[in-house]
Amino acid sequence: MIDLAGRGKAVLAVVLEEHGGPDVLRLREVPDPTIGPEEVLVEIVSTAVNRADLLQRMGLYPGPPTEFEIPGLEFAGRVLAVGDRVVERGVGDVVMAITNGGAYAEKIAIHERLTMRVPDHLPLDVAGAFPETFITAWDALVVQGGLTSGRWALVHAGASGVGTSAIQIAKSIGARIIVTASAGKHHVCESLGADVVVDYTTEDFVDAVKKATGGAGVDVVLDVIGGEYVARNVASLRTGGRVIQVGLMAGGSVEFDVGSLLMRRAAIIGTTLRARPLEEKIMVTRRFSAEMLALVDSGVLAPVIDSRYPLADIADAHRRMESNANAGKLVIEVAPV
Amino acid sequence: MIDLAGRGKAVLAVVLEEHGGPDVLRLREVPDPTIGPEEVLVEIVSTAVNRADLLQRMGLYPGPPTEFEIPGLEFAGRVLAVGDRVVERGVGDVVMAITNGGAYAEKIAIHERLTMRVPDHLPLDVAGAFPETFITAWDALVVQGGLTSGRWALVHAGASGVGTSAIQIAKSIGARIIVTASAGKHHVCESLGADVVVDYTTEDFVDAVKKATGGAGVDVVLDVIGGEYVARNVASLRTGGRVIQVGLMAGGSVEFDVGSLLMRRAAIIGTTLRARPLEEKIMVTRRFSAEMLALVDSGVLAPVIDSRYPLADIADAHRRMESNANAGKLVIEVAPV
Repeated sequence: MIDLAGRGKAVLAVVLEEHGGPDVLRLREVPDPTIGPEEVLVEIVSTAVNRADLLQRMGLYPGPPTEFEIPGLEFAGRVLAVGDRVVERGVGDVVMAITNGGAYAEKIAIHERLTMRVPDHLPLDVAGAFPETFITAWDALVVQGGLTSGRWALVHAGASGVGTSAIQIAKSIGARIIVTASAGKHHVCESLGADVVVDYTTEDFVDAVKKATGGAGVDVVLDVIGGEYVARNVASLRTGGRVIQVGLMAGGSVEFDVGSLLMRRAAIIGTTLRARPLEEKIMVTRRFSAEMLALVDSGVLAPVIDSRYPLADIADAHRRMESNANAGKLVIEVAPV
Repeated sequence: MIDLAGRGKAVLAVVLEEHGGPDVLRLREVPDPTIGPEEVLVEIVSTAVNRADLLQRMGLYPGPPTEFEIPGLEFAGRVLAVGDRVVERGVGDVVMAITNGGAYAEKIAIHERLTMRVPDHLPLDVAGAFPETFITAWDALVVQGGLTSGRWALVHAGASGVGTSAIQIAKSIGARIIVTASAGKHHVCESLGADVVVDYTTEDFVDAVKKATGGAGVDVVLDVIGGEYVARNVASLRTGGRVIQVGLMAGGSVEFDVGSLLMRRAAIIGTTLRARPLEEKIMVTRRFSAEMLALVDSGVLAPVIDSRYPLADIADAHRRMESNANAGKLVIEVAPV
């Protein structure tokens, strides 16, 4: 048991006291978070499960060193208190944000400049499933990949949280997108407007890319798979194209012909959101807010919700993602709206 | 023999009529080049041998389809004639340029906007050895690699044409540079101002990078080697660093952990100058002229000359580069200054 003597009020959080299967996700009381002068204290209404959380739970992707290892990379909620130097947020504001951990909890302390306003069209009980995959997909496709109107993207796991975000982003900026997904999830990708949906179990996505792009190849690949996809991703690129590698579900050790990069004057760029320092997280968040939240206001972008779980049942949400059964986001409801 | 009947005047050029060893480099008469409306006709005074020429000679790196396969990627000389729409160059101007072939010859036709002025400090009989490696190194380190004052570069083959250019460029902009070279060539790298010179036969360059950078790693790696260097290049990078791959002397097929890119949020970028379309070559040439030729004017940048050969003896120059005996550029003297 955690000794809370002398720590004041306690809140419930999912604390990793060991690493392993979903059963290690257990609710515990932890001390009320204390806020620094530029931070706000947020009562979390919703959060969501991300692939990185599964790795962290298994001990394969350690979070930053903290007293209590609380996973959770995104959330939405109400501001309960603000630090002395906070200027942009006030008590009662509704906000959402990415964080490098701590969102599987009733409360969190976060730098005020990391918080975004919650757009009108985004209910607070699902807004906690919005920031991580939309910022990840936008940063990968647009900022690092240079996706613009008219250009082509290839995105694997099209029905995943990142995939469903990527399709919406690509279509909302006038770009064209090819996604891979298993047959049972094609309708999700198609309903979001994906130009081409490839069944990776029966079709070669390199062939599908060539066919769709008239032999030219795509401008950017967003890949969470890795493994034997790496070489095929490069083979799918047009001259000057880029693979943005945001995950390695099939592993990172590959045999690879670097000559295929030279021939295309192409690049493979590794990226993660979580590992970035605070100032970089703030910068990407603020640019995303400026460029993309208007599209949530107008109803163009919205998280695709697969299912909802109360915080106490978060292990079930992990099991569902682990079995690749989900299409879209697994929302965790922490408090009533 | 080539039939020149009805073609007007002839010039001498090294024409690849077959692929193979240096003996296939033979002087032949070819028709006087004809110029398009935006082109200038240049009497070549000097050219130089580049690694890509050796590959092309062996049939491993085909040039663009032309009637006569004449290698040669750079030259300097005098303008003999100008096309109808030429506005920036006149007869008698001295110019230098990169080209995608054709510089192993007495004359060449080239787009006027690809030509650069020849700085005062650069004698015309060596200026033909300047453009290719300086533009390659600058484009890789500065444009694509983001090298600036205070940042660190790692450059392999430090005594090569690209290497000696890279050292001078890095030092001239206030950056710091670590190079690898065999022991017999260290004095060349040191005399140019390399901060750290690593003997790759006895030292691990990853260790040398860590030591020099206080464990942080370098911002950019310029690599012409490939092979087992690829993984070690990435291991030498700091967070957000980039490997710029401009050659693959040790081969392109590698085993590689893409996870090492994600961990560092790093990139491997393949690049070549020769394969770029005309407009991109013009753009890189003009930006290079604007930003770097002032440093040739002031005597800070100059090609390092290993040796000189008349055009008739170009096979000997190829043999010297093939045996890795050269430190710096192999100049080919085509005509008197």
